[in-house]
Amino acid sequence: MTLVADLVVVGASEVLTMAGPSTPLGTTGAGGAEARLGRIPKGAVAAHSGRIVWVGPERELGDSVVLGPDAARIDARGGAVLPGLVDCHTHLVFAGDRSTEFARKMAGESYQSIAASGGGIMSSVRATRAATEEALLALASERALRLRSHGVTTVECKSGYGLELEAELRCLRVGRRLGEIGAHPEREGTPPAYGGIVRTTTTFLGAHVVPAEHRSDRARYVDEICERMIPAVASEGLADACDVYLDEGAFDHDEARRILSTARHAGLALRLHAGQFRDLGGGELAAELGALSADHLEALTDTGLAAMSRAGVVGVLLPGAWRTLRQTPPDASRFRAAGLAMAIATDCNPGTSPTTDPWLCAALAVRDAGLTLEEALLGVTIEAARAAGLPDRGALRPGALADLAVFPHADARALPYWLGDVHASHVVLGGRPISGA
Amino acid sequence: MTLVADLVVVGASEVLTMAGPSTPLGTTGAGGAEARLGRIPKGAVAAHSGRIVWVGPERELGDSVVLGPDAARIDARGGAVLPGLVDCHTHLVFAGDRSTEFARKMAGESYQSIAASGGGIMSSVRATRAATEEALLALASERALRLRSHGVTTVECKSGYGLELEAELRCLRVGRRLGEIGAHPEREGTPPAYGGIVRTTTTFLGAHVVPAEHRSDRARYVDEICERMIPAVASEGLADACDVYLDEGAFDHDEARRILSTARHAGLALRLHAGQFRDLGGGELAAELGALSADHLEALTDTGLAAMSRAGVVGVLLPGAWRTLRQTPPDASRFRAAGLAMAIATDCNPGTSPTTDPWLCAALAVRDAGLTLEEALLGVTIEAARAAGLPDRGALRPGALADLAVFPHADARALPYWLGDVHASHVVLGGRPISGA
Repeated sequence: MTLVADLVVVGASEVLTMAGPSTPLGTTGAGGAEARLGRIPKGAVAAHSGRIVWVGPERELGDSVVLGPDAARIDARGGAVLPGLVDCHTHLVFAGDRSTEFARKMAGESYQSIAASGGGIMSSVRATRAATEEALLALASERALRLRSHGVTTVECKSGYGLELEAELRCLRVGRRLGEIGAHPEREGTPPAYGGIVRTTTTFLGAHVVPAEHRSDRARYVDEICERMIPAVASEGLADACDVYLDEGAFDHDEARRILSTARHAGLALRLHAGQFRDLGGGELAAELGALSADHLEALTDTGLAAMSRAGVVGVLLPGAWRTLRQTPPDASRFRAAGLAMAIATDCNPGTSPTTDPWLCAALAVRDAGLTLEEALLGVTIEAARAAGLPDRGALRPGALADLAVFPHADARALPYWLGDVHASHVVLGGRPISGA
Repeated sequence: MTLVADLVVVGASEVLTMAGPSTPLGTTGAGGAEARLGRIPKGAVAAHSGRIVWVGPERELGDSVVLGPDAARIDARGGAVLPGLVDCHTHLVFAGDRSTEFARKMAGESYQSIAASGGGIMSSVRATRAATEEALLALASERALRLRSHGVTTVECKSGYGLELEAELRCLRVGRRLGEIGAHPEREGTPPAYGGIVRTTTTFLGAHVVPAEHRSDRARYVDEICERMIPAVASEGLADACDVYLDEGAFDHDEARRILSTARHAGLALRLHAGQFRDLGGGELAAELGALSADHLEALTDTGLAAMSRAGVVGVLLPGAWRTLRQTPPDASRFRAAGLAMAIATDCNPGTSPTTDPWLCAALAVRDAGLTLEEALLGVTIEAARAAGLPDRGALRPGALADLAVFPHADARALPYWLGDVHASHVVLGGRPISGA
């Protein structure tokens, strides 16, 4: 069968499909990870109408694929081709600057003292509530462009700096619009090309922290989330998932269960911030409720990890946060022993993880938590797509979205090896080459 | 007095001169560091013939400075203006790729096993020896451009992957040429404008490791360094300084003393790799011989730090290396207690610190070693210039080189706050604006 393509990527040193075979016992171990990369030396990729139609050795391209008129041809110039990265955990939509507060924290002032003087999450909440939707969109777009320069094509955007109905809806709307701006009229005769800066998926995180005005009556805020916010978010179709920050100082196990159950009932997928500081049973709760992922995990016990693994919950590692908070990093060997899938994300947020570089996070996951380079490559692509509940991306296989990135490195393992400054030479989004990405 | 300028920088939120007053007891403490930043809110800078002629509040610019014909005007658009960064410790000149070896190391293989199979520094030495000068220059230029994108205007380049006379000279020549390429004919009537990608200063590090072919007779290699290499390097004027890697597995105290004394006698300034793994008395040796700096310091005792401080030896912190080697970072409070000046550098090298991002290193120095943001800002500018023995840069004051960088951040403390992705919006090198830096 000969396929028609409107885009081909040629000249690559290697294509990593992330669609290699997984062995039951080796899915996350070093050997299993290597096989799962699906490495094709001198591979090529062909796409049509925004979907991958063919992936294989370039020498077989001519026999397999016919180029349509006006087909785009990208020369990887000896670089590596990967699926577009999925940044599966970000708090991208926020206003305000917390570098002053960070300076105080790094100079030794306690978190409590900073919070008492109006700092912490509530400082970003005040700035975000005061910002217009357009201002928030401009700020988030700038961050999304930085993410995309590293090869990211899908960004998960959480709300959580609104903490009141209108502000939460506004933040989610910004997340949705971020995936749409830049859209251009489709070419005649072809299905709509994807036109945004990046694709986005949005997560409602009204349960980020109990806002200052509700501190004396937290039950009422949980009611507000369950009875007003989730229904509104769901009925307006503004979120794909719901997340809760389950930890000391945030929400407890019962509150998390109630909020997530309500969200599930409203048709939202589930995510969970679990075990960043203490294990409050988040691994088991995520498993029980069928969450897509549990994220952070620095303090999670083996019982929680085992429960997640059995239920297919992805573990999301957030190195920017553990570094910025000067925490002991989690140990990948424990995750590997539990058979847990490991994704890596930036956690981009102004308080604890001010970063828009997923490769830097991958490099830190390798150095700090002991992931292999192969596990890190899977962690920012296919595992991240699983964590975000997006089976149509994160891997290069026929039928998947034609979202990919080309890097000027012959060996893809160089990407999480360099600390910083790893940028894509080309990004393709829905079959559309992005110039100057 | 009215000054004539051929370049002005206006529109800044703040100018950090790094030339503020230092108090005897507060040079490195948080309060002292703040004063030393020399922060000028809404400041401006004027330069003439490649030198700074005026720095002050923008409202006083018109009364102080007259613009010459064809003067360049840079609008900082509300960003922060800093002296161009000095990256005072790099191994920028190398060929070959060590990501495969890194993969093995991160997967748990021992350093010994990797070295036994031909990996480690000797792997880069083989590739570097085999590379032509032009090939090495191309590789180093690419890295220098990445450094410059972060605002670096001076790069220290060590040799040390040649480890035989001709290859060492070749690497130093590449370091020198890197500071010259891109030169353009000077405009008539003005002194030569600086034309390189960056300025460089070169350091001879023949004593990086004993090369494989000399392992059975290391004394002869030390003789070779002292009797052939140093005289050749000095007579050809190819190096500004000499460095020795004093540590277990590299060179011992007596060898280091002999090499550095020979270099000093030949007119070279001195640097020292000291205490990365074990304290072999490097702090005291650097102090005794009047070295500019001792670098790494992870394992240095308080006695060594005190000796350095008394002798005015700068301590250079290399966060990329301690992270990549999974070491316990040094503790800034000990350096502060000793009154030691702290610089930060990338240590860019393929084995233990593959990074070209000085702001990332600063952000890690803050997070890992406990530097304040102010100390980090001093560490990549004025302290780094001191470590490299370059009193004419690293600060914005009349007479200094007109090397500066503009960042799109209103508050300069945001620069070591973000993890990665901090780039200059403008770089000025010797009064010459660099487009698209």
